[in-house]
Amino acid sequence: MSVTSTNPATGEQRALDLEETSPERVAAASTRARRASHEYARRPLDWREGLLGAMAEELEADAATLVATAQAETALPEARLRGELARTAFQFRFFAEVVRDGAFLGASIDEATDSPMGPLPDLRRVKVPLGPVAVFGSSNFPFAFSVPGGDTASALAAGCAVVIKAHPAHPATSAACFAALDRACDRRGAPEGLVSLVFGLDAGTALVQAPAIAAVGFTGSVAAGRALWALAHAREVPVPFYGELGSANPLVVTAAAARERAGEIGEGVAGSIALGAGQFCTKPGLVFVPAGPDGDALVAALGARLGRDGRVTLLSEGIAENFRRGARSLEVDGGASVLVGGEWGEAAHTSARLLQVDAGRFARESALHAECFGPLAVVVRYGGVDELRTALDAAEPALTFSAHVAEADPDAAWLVEWGASRAGRVVVNGYPTGVGVSWSMHHGGPWPATTAAWATSVGAAAVERWLRPVTYQSVPPDLLPAALRDENALGIPRRLNGRLDPGA
Amino acid sequence: MSVTSTNPATGEQRALDLEETSPERVAAASTRARRASHEYARRPLDWREGLLGAMAEELEADAATLVATAQAETALPEARLRGELARTAFQFRFFAEVVRDGAFLGASIDEATDSPMGPLPDLRRVKVPLGPVAVFGSSNFPFAFSVPGGDTASALAAGCAVVIKAHPAHPATSAACFAALDRACDRRGAPEGLVSLVFGLDAGTALVQAPAIAAVGFTGSVAAGRALWALAHAREVPVPFYGELGSANPLVVTAAAARERAGEIGEGVAGSIALGAGQFCTKPGLVFVPAGPDGDALVAALGARLGRDGRVTLLSEGIAENFRRGARSLEVDGGASVLVGGEWGEAAHTSARLLQVDAGRFARESALHAECFGPLAVVVRYGGVDELRTALDAAEPALTFSAHVAEADPDAAWLVEWGASRAGRVVVNGYPTGVGVSWSMHHGGPWPATTAAWATSVGAAAVERWLRPVTYQSVPPDLLPAALRDENALGIPRRLNGRLDPGA
Repeated sequence: MSVTSTNPATGEQRALDLEETSPERVAAASTRARRASHEYARRPLDWREGLLGAMAEELEADAATLVATAQAETALPEARLRGELARTAFQFRFFAEVVRDGAFLGASIDEATDSPMGPLPDLRRVKVPLGPVAVFGSSNFPFAFSVPGGDTASALAAGCAVVIKAHPAHPATSAACFAALDRACDRRGAPEGLVSLVFGLDAGTALVQAPAIAAVGFTGSVAAGRALWALAHAREVPVPFYGELGSANPLVVTAAAARERAGEIGEGVAGSIALGAGQFCTKPGLVFVPAGPDGDALVAALGARLGRDGRVTLLSEGIAENFRRGARSLEVDGGASVLVGGEWGEAAHTSARLLQVDAGRFARESALHAECFGPLAVVVRYGGVDELRTALDAAEPALTFSAHVAEADPDAAWLVEWGASRAGRVVVNGYPTGVGVSWSMHHGGPWPATTAAWATSVGAAAVERWLRPVTYQSVPPDLLPAALRDENALGIPRRLNGRLDPGA
Repeated sequence: MSVTSTNPATGEQRALDLEETSPERVAAASTRARRASHEYARRPLDWREGLLGAMAEELEADAATLVATAQAETALPEARLRGELARTAFQFRFFAEVVRDGAFLGASIDEATDSPMGPLPDLRRVKVPLGPVAVFGSSNFPFAFSVPGGDTASALAAGCAVVIKAHPAHPATSAACFAALDRACDRRGAPEGLVSLVFGLDAGTALVQAPAIAAVGFTGSVAAGRALWALAHAREVPVPFYGELGSANPLVVTAAAARERAGEIGEGVAGSIALGAGQFCTKPGLVFVPAGPDGDALVAALGARLGRDGRVTLLSEGIAENFRRGARSLEVDGGASVLVGGEWGEAAHTSARLLQVDAGRFARESALHAECFGPLAVVVRYGGVDELRTALDAAEPALTFSAHVAEADPDAAWLVEWGASRAGRVVVNGYPTGVGVSWSMHHGGPWPATTAAWATSVGAAAVERWLRPVTYQSVPPDLLPAALRDENALGIPRRLNGRLDPGA
């Protein structure tokens, strides 16, 4: 079956010169990836750095085409796509820096010693790549969380080959991005099959089941993510599945903050909800606002700003249909009232919605707890701190939790602590959309936000998902990997007999 | 139903003054553990250190009773149990050192900055405890991998409460060890329910399913481990399951090494197989020996030493029955010939066995690849490097891989590399039994050796299983955890704007 590219803005479809990948070809790509992974893992770290840098360059060199292609498949604005592509290239360079730093290797040396427990042999630990990683790109970031996204870059940084399943909402963009990565591989003489691309739903299933695949990275919907997660565990040899499934991202405005700056927060929250037409996994989907006039003013500002955009085009007709279905469920099953609601739209078009419920209903009604992907938020009005807390406890764990507080706010401390107990990132007086690529970023969270709360899909630590430790016991120096030899020629951070040496 | 303690040496049974724990009580203990976990996580790190130290002291203070109790339930020799208890106390002190070190918190600070991608907010990451950990102790280490074992100590070091399922083979030892831990909790004023103990098969099932449980640590058989692993994933909210399931631990003797020191290696391998009556998860169960006279001499030395012990008593009648069943399967289904085989024995008694097959048969016959827990090894005779490699490729991934090599051995390099690709620890000219508690130890390995290849159940990194990261974005200093405040009063290693600071 040939692959079709659809323009969500016009509904126009065109058949691409691409076929859906048969299960046999998926298996072949995975086996090639295993061979490539093996060879790649043996190359020096600076070779890896060079490849990541070359990928950044190839993406940048092709920016005009890539952005135009993505625009026609996602209806995202050009400026946003240019920014996203720049971030994507930056991400490859950032992971090159992570490789150069070398701390991700977790190197540790305990020289042979007489311990209180008797003699201990020489023990040296380093992390090694898992092998081929299957990457499932998301719909909403056609660059940064897709073919050339964080999973691909971090897996390559870890020393793993990747087999990428193209998202059906942007196959032409996927193919063009893959071509850029492939040119970088060619230029640097990468092992054949180090990066490959497959198309189609069945190809995705076959990919998770392919014996040569050693781990899976996924960004996308809860339904698809959980189905693939189950497949990864049902294999004869189960593999780790790192799924980032999105979440409702509660945002709380305290009474004191609403009193202080209702309008400013209302506008800010609306901007965060509307960003990318609400198609961010970090969109604040639940906004807890105090009952009473300060809260009313905040909600009014929020609604006014959110209602201003009129018709928006979502990433695909399928996403728009799910959006309409999700919004109706919140209104009908959940009993939320509609504060802002323009036309439902048809095909990929719709408009932003703002719903409202009281905290008591929210706490009781699980239909209100589901994420609705798209330009929609539910305002939850609470009467006091007890009611707020009960409502928050009813919400599901999330990627992010945000609190808007005032100076010396009596609610600030418990809200931050509560947030840390239920989310992967806690934001104070800011917005959760916008996930910086940096050393300290954590983009993850407890189930159901992700399938593995210890793991992140953004930031330096993303590389840790694709590694496992190996300890070398009494292994002669010439048989040790470079990272574990006494001289530390790589200049990487290591522990030596328990003491941390930050390296060169 | 009351709990029964059996002496495997005599078969004598006695009813303990203990009841199997009902599912309701398991749920109650788990809920108490959640409250305790919450309070415990808020206490300062040095309080945690103090508690771990007190646990070491209480175990040591009760050593005579604990060892006598364990001896009557395990038939392990007194000297071994004394050593194991000392190691167990040491392990609590070691994890206190890990807490004091603070690197396990993964603290990282990125100050607000203008990046090439636009302004980035202040981002600070630290790891937080997951919450109550269910611990399933093993049969073969009644102290070091059981109630006061590495899972318990590392979970407490991480800031988590624990609910421990006692192993049915040593309930009195479990109760006595728990009493020691409980005294330490009392002495230090630990939150109520921080450590609790449950008994019975149904209690174990209920424990993995209890909503308050946040993670599971397991050491034991493949069958039990996989069943509980599946349960942990079938929960409404799945939780991480860290199972260490044992493995066949291939050990290779190269042609050059056999030529050089056949007798010495044969004796050494036999000692490693016989240690603890073969009831180590790191027992070398597959010994690859070259065909020909050097190999013959090695096997003769191995067999002579292994046959010397006569009757041995295993940990329980059940383990002895599984041993007899496993050995018969290797002989009947696998077609291995018997080099050493004394009486099969009855009840918990048996004797060591040494089997042999050629490498071709081993590569073809999957019945030969299963671990047989107890005093048994399969010698695999190979004709050349190609045959060795094919046979090794057929073996399952393992906790350990050992190679005995000669000076300038042409096979050393590929064997070490092969081992690292399939095992969690690679030993050269040594034995895999004996797992030191240290910074660089990794006790884990790819599936089916463990259920999570990134994780270790021994050594400093064991604590990482019970943590998840949280990033604080733009959080005011007074609302940050101590580990993330500018002044670094804890003196812990941190990253600051990407640069590693080893701390105080």
